Amino acid sequence: MTRIGIDIQGGDYAPEVVWQGLELALPELKAGTELNLYGLEADAARSPEGHRYHLCSQAIEMGEHPVKALQQKQDATLIRGVVDLAQKKIDSFASAGHSGALMVASMQILGLQEGINRPVVVSLFPRIDGGQIAVLDVGLNVDAQAEQFLEFAQLGASYAKAVLAKREPKIALLNTGAEESKGSVVYKRAHELLKESVEGFSGNMEARDFFQSDVDVLLCDGFTGNIILKQTESFYTLSKELGLKHEFLNRLDYENYGASPIRGVRGKVFLAHGPSGPRAIKNMILGAESIALANFVHS
Amino acid sequence: MTRIGIDIQGGDYAPEVVWQGLELALPELKAGTELNLYGLEADAARSPEGHRYHLCSQAIEMGEHPVKALQQKQDATLIRGVVDLAQKKIDSFASAGHSGALMVASMQILGLQEGINRPVVVSLFPRIDGGQIAVLDVGLNVDAQAEQFLEFAQLGASYAKAVLAKREPKIALLNTGAEESKGSVVYKRAHELLKESVEGFSGNMEARDFFQSDVDVLLCDGFTGNIILKQTESFYTLSKELGLKHEFLNRLDYENYGASPIRGVRGKVFLAHGPSGPRAIKNMILGAESIALANFVHS
Repeated sequence: MTRIGIDIQGGDYAPEVVWQGLELALPELKAGTELNLYGLEADAARSPEGHRYHLCSQAIEMGEHPVKALQQKQDATLIRGVVDLAQKKIDSFASAGHSGALMVASMQILGLQEGINRPVVVSLFPRIDGGQIAVLDVGLNVDAQAEQFLEFAQLGASYAKAVLAKREPKIALLNTGAEESKGSVVYKRAHELLKESVEGFSGNMEARDFFQSDVDVLLCDGFTGNIILKQTESFYTLSKELGLKHEFLNRLDYENYGASPIRGVRGKVFLAHGPSGPRAIKNMILGAESIALANFVHS
Repeated sequence: MTRIGIDIQGGDYAPEVVWQGLELALPELKAGTELNLYGLEADAARSPEGHRYHLCSQAIEMGEHPVKALQQKQDATLIRGVVDLAQKKIDSFASAGHSGALMVASMQILGLQEGINRPVVVSLFPRIDGGQIAVLDVGLNVDAQAEQFLEFAQLGASYAKAVLAKREPKIALLNTGAEESKGSVVYKRAHELLKESVEGFSGNMEARDFFQSDVDVLLCDGFTGNIILKQTESFYTLSKELGLKHEFLNRLDYENYGASPIRGVRGKVFLAHGPSGPRAIKNMILGAESIALANFVHS
């Protein structure tokens, strides 16, 4: 049985939108998948048959301080889910709630993987050749140091192996030019370190090849990754505004991705955008199901 | 008379492609515009009537060290053009040649504007509302410190006033979220400084609003700006590969922009991509003409 944990109170429009997304996801779940819903008493009656509802007395609000929330709200939906994940009562946990709180809870309750000092957020983007490129970090490590890129490479490689089924993932460093000498101080040093010790490292990749490369894992700091993620959203919005239609463009819609995995912690945690709509929540749940089934070497 | 300097030896496919671009530009030049062509003896006979050919004995190759090139090749096409610009013999100078050499020559021969410590490269992008957004820096200052963002704001504002005809340009800081507390250490500090002292500063802008905002000037470090520039190229290439058609997409084609101005130096210098084709060169020349006519307060 696959046991998926869902934070009913997670998201700007929770709980209503989470229920709507859940309804969309239910018919598509695999037989043998059990949802474990972490919600408040008011919503308990809405829990679908054949799944489990975990009654919680608290919820973390968007403006709260993550560390304080973790200390003071032990019975919050988000915390309870992470605790159950740590105790192996569920196989993965997904929330569109407070990303900082989810990050801190994941680090403190699940703990970090060996050799990892900071978790990362991974985002998948479509390539025009039909493949996908995993980009990390896309949000947490905005001041990443060169040494952290080795952790990004390790986490990206294990992700590509487990989720993209790449035995020998091709790894590249996002940079301003193909030459080793390109980029900022941090990126130049990161290039040296990656070249020295990372198997499958193919050098720098320029953003002009973003959709066109055959790279499986693209490494960048969390600031740059966040810009790339959001500029892609801007392209998608633009294409809709212009009335452009193509199957590939649908693959750029973040609602189709639903959520991004947090990697580097000892458990499978899935983070969705706060303003997620029902379709994004649906895909978050299906993503949490598929990642629960994935076999990570390092987690 | 408007006197435009052109580096005949600038670009990966020079001089042939420069001549081709020049031929495309000639019919569109304003009456009263004089081209000043800096080229080698072999090409002198190709100079069109009514324009001036400056015979040079050297050319700077792509792999050369910028500072050495400046010291050892005083008679190179690129250097001679910048010297003539400094001596007010021409009103603007454009090259698709060695960007580092053009930057160093501009700084050393033209000198920096008052209050400016480093030049920047500006790039214009279309907005869906029909306007344009000037992004800087897009390439030079890959390790920008927070204080430099004040220079970016000054140079961006004067550019928007002169070229986009914005009396009170709206200025924003590219960042990972709208809140002041978002971003890396440098961006948080840059936000504080901009808020304190820059008129027209409207706060952070997320990349998801890149094409959709009403911002005139977007500030970022040269690393991030380069990524944005090139990811837009990737999106343009993608749209062509998918067979998408829309007038707006043509505006994303960098060949239609042709070149980017270097700002912060005492003179109007225009830099095109090394691999520019004839159409990009044509637009570089027309851009150099229009910038020669622009009235910059600070230059």
